[in-house]
Amino acid sequence: MVRSQETFMATLGLIEYEAASPDVRAVYDGIMATRKTDYINNFWKALAHDPVTLKRTWASIKEIMAPGALDALTKELIYLAVSTTNQCGYCIASHTAAARKAGMTNEMFAELQAVTGMANESNRLASGWQVEVDDRFKT
Amino acid sequence: MVRSQETFMATLGLIEYEAASPDVRAVYDGIMATRKTDYINNFWKALAHDPVTLKRTWASIKEIMAPGALDALTKELIYLAVSTTNQCGYCIASHTAAARKAGMTNEMFAELQAVTGMANESNRLASGWQVEVDDRFKT
Amino acid sequence: MVRSQETFMATLGLIEYEAASPDVRAVYDGIMATRKTDYINNFWKALAHDPVTLKRTWASIKEIMAPGALDALTKELIYLAVSTTNQCGYCIASHTAAARKAGMTNEMFAELQAVTGMANESNRLASGWQVEVDDRFKT
Amino acid sequence: MVRSQETFMATLGLIEYEAASPDVRAVYDGIMATRKTDYINNFWKALAHDPVTLKRTWASIKEIMAPGALDALTKELIYLAVSTTNQCGYCIASHTAAARKAGMTNEMFAELQAVTGMANESNRLASGWQVEVDDRFKT
Amino acid sequence: MVRSQETFMATLGLIEYEAASPDVRAVYDGIMATRKTDYINNFWKALAHDPVTLKRTWASIKEIMAPGALDALTKELIYLAVSTTNQCGYCIASHTAAARKAGMTNEMFAELQAVTGMANESNRLASGWQVEVDDRFKT
Amino acid sequence: MVRSQETFMATLGLIEYEAASPDVRAVYDGIMATRKTDYINNFWKALAHDPVTLKRTWASIKEIMAPGALDALTKELIYLAVSTTNQCGYCIASHTAAARKAGMTNEMFAELQAVTGMANESNRLASGWQVEVDDRFKT
Repeated sequence: MVRSQETFMATLGLIEYEAASPDVRAVYDGIMATRKTDYINNFWKALAHDPVTLKRTWASIKEIMAPGALDALTKELIYLAVSTTNQCGYCIASHTAAARKAGMTNEMFAELQAVTGMANESNRLASGWQVEVDDRFKT
Repeated sequence: MVRSQETFMATLGLIEYEAASPDVRAVYDGIMATRKTDYINNFWKALAHDPVTLKRTWASIKEIMAPGALDALTKELIYLAVSTTNQCGYCIASHTAAARKAGMTNEMFAELQAVTGMANESNRLASGWQVEVDDRFKT
Repeated sequence: MVRSQETFMATLGLIEYEAASPDVRAVYDGIMATRKTDYINNFWKALAHDPVTLKRTWASIKEIMAPGALDALTKELIYLAVSTTNQCGYCIASHTAAARKAGMTNEMFAELQAVTGMANESNRLASGWQVEVDDRFKT
Repeated sequence: MVRSQETFMATLGLIEYEAASPDVRAVYDGIMATRKTDYINNFWKALAHDPVTLKRTWASIKEIMAPGALDALTKELIYLAVSTTNQCGYCIASHTAAARKAGMTNEMFAELQAVTGMANESNRLASGWQVEVDDRFKT
Repeated sequence: MVRSQETFMATLGLIEYEAASPDVRAVYDGIMATRKTDYINNFWKALAHDPVTLKRTWASIKEIMAPGALDALTKELIYLAVSTTNQCGYCIASHTAAARKAGMTNEMFAELQAVTGMANESNRLASGWQVEVDDRFKT
Repeated sequence: MVRSQETFMATLGLIEYEAASPDVRAVYDGIMATRKTDYINNFWKALAHDPVTLKRTWASIKEIMAPGALDALTKELIYLAVSTTNQCGYCIASHTAAARKAGMTNEMFAELQAVTGMANESNRLASGWQVEVDDRFKT
């Protein structure tokens, strides 16, 4: 594993394709091929300072986000709901874009936000009122 | 607004249908009719100590969770992903049950957890690495 | 600084007054005097394994929770709202009790939960919709 | 329900009063009348892209934030404590302003932050030390 | 990929070694060999209902937690601090055990909790007071 | 206790050394002496509007962050992991700087982020799968 110690984090700059090592380029190539795009977003260009994490994270996301029992759009909606709950600005912006690309309409977006908001509310009502788990819900 | 001050919260007990006021019974009736069940789960029986909040919360959830641009199952999946992110024990248990009732299979559950976990991970990678939002993601 | 290395955390047991060191007893005495009670709750009996943190935490809480521009009840309500938001089971239980002792009625409790729930909801709506801060709210 | 699909979220722009539908204007009118102001803040102008959620959210907030067992200022303080705990930038800014309008002085603000900070600290101490709930706190 | 649809989540039971598929057993073997133990904890036995996630998660954790620029104990301390911040009961319990196995003394545990608590407090003070990032901290 | 009511929070401005009261200056002096620097970061200059909290917070941080069973660098790493989990922008920026000053290399930073991310993921997997605490992990 080689990590570019001299350059990263002094500025936490982004590693462009041209400046990337072969390991990093291979991940970038995989992202572009899988997503059918020639654009690599900043998340990956920052993570490229740690090629081991870059490679593992991309492999994990590729496996997890591939259509399976849940289709690609549903997975993106879940991703966005989690990012919104955690209030991660970068993730909300990038996954709103990704979900739209996967087919999320404006109506879906609005309903997603409504469900996410309500879940965050009722989560606290359940906790604050110290509600016991129903026997039938116990696993 | 009448709230049963004498009884609630000494024990934070649950208000059963038989002991409920007409206002509370009306909500319980609505829940059972909408969900096609004769079971009221503990969340509502606890919230019944505050009939105003009970009524508003049920009306909101009924409106939000009705099928629209997103179907009922997708909404339940989002609800569960948020509850898992917030680590609300009651909500995870009850919404896992609700999602299963809405059609979530074991495979869907497993994929939902995988996406939820990954989103929580990448949310922190994005923040920790202080990634700037891409211009194209800016709204 | 002396920390009772042999005993704590093998079981994470609670340190009762009788078994406590003079340093720990002094804190226990302060808690009982300030709160006009002869009861020390488990939080302190666990923290007593780390007398330095016990002492600092009690001194901080005593200073922070003393009536000032905000009265004692309002401070307890805020404490409970935060604990509910964080879904800390112990803290919800203990601070519900503390707030009731400070004068929280059942109606106040119910309204507190309603506000806490709503704030958690609107926090996500604001983030998910990527709302820009109004110029007039900028500090 | 009509949602302006063409315009919203391409930019997630704000819907001004002049451009708003009658449904949205009715909510804006309600906000301005209740709050005795001619200013609608960005949260509502963004949510206006989803008139159903806009209407429900405003109706809920109006009901929840009205003085009851807790006065308006106390409710705003709780709202701000939750928003701070969740680290929602928009909400901290807007509810700091709202609380000040409701009478929060600089001293109250400072004490609120101190309590909020301490609660967040002790929540983790309680969890990390795995403190069992006292029998007397059990509901 | 084969996921045991019939059995899992009806009870969310645990999959013991004897009942495990060859894929799952291979992961269990890897865990036991790496950790020099014959004990598989419940986290893995639950995740075994989803062999794909089980395999990926173990491979990721093995890679991440291996000693590198940070030693194994430091990594466990970080893991525990995060779990405490998130108030994940299972994770606090299991990673307290793991950290102790990796060499965490009682004093280290106590100091870890103190730092974790303080960080959670100051995180909110920074947000609540809306502190601007210093120019020199900008990346 | 004197809090400068007239000036603070109209702008939430920063209190520079020259404009600070003797109480505040004493804390600033302590920070500069302890950290061997002539720079006071914005967190303290904002908190200076509340000298009581300023003094207590600095005293607490000084005590907590002093080398003990854990060295100064390890404590900074934990602080950064918590700040990242909470997604506190200010704290991530300032504690990344502090950790680097304490000796964190680029490799350490990258590994810290990887552990933090993974812990956030597995925290949700444990909760979502409703994993029971192993008997041997019970305290």
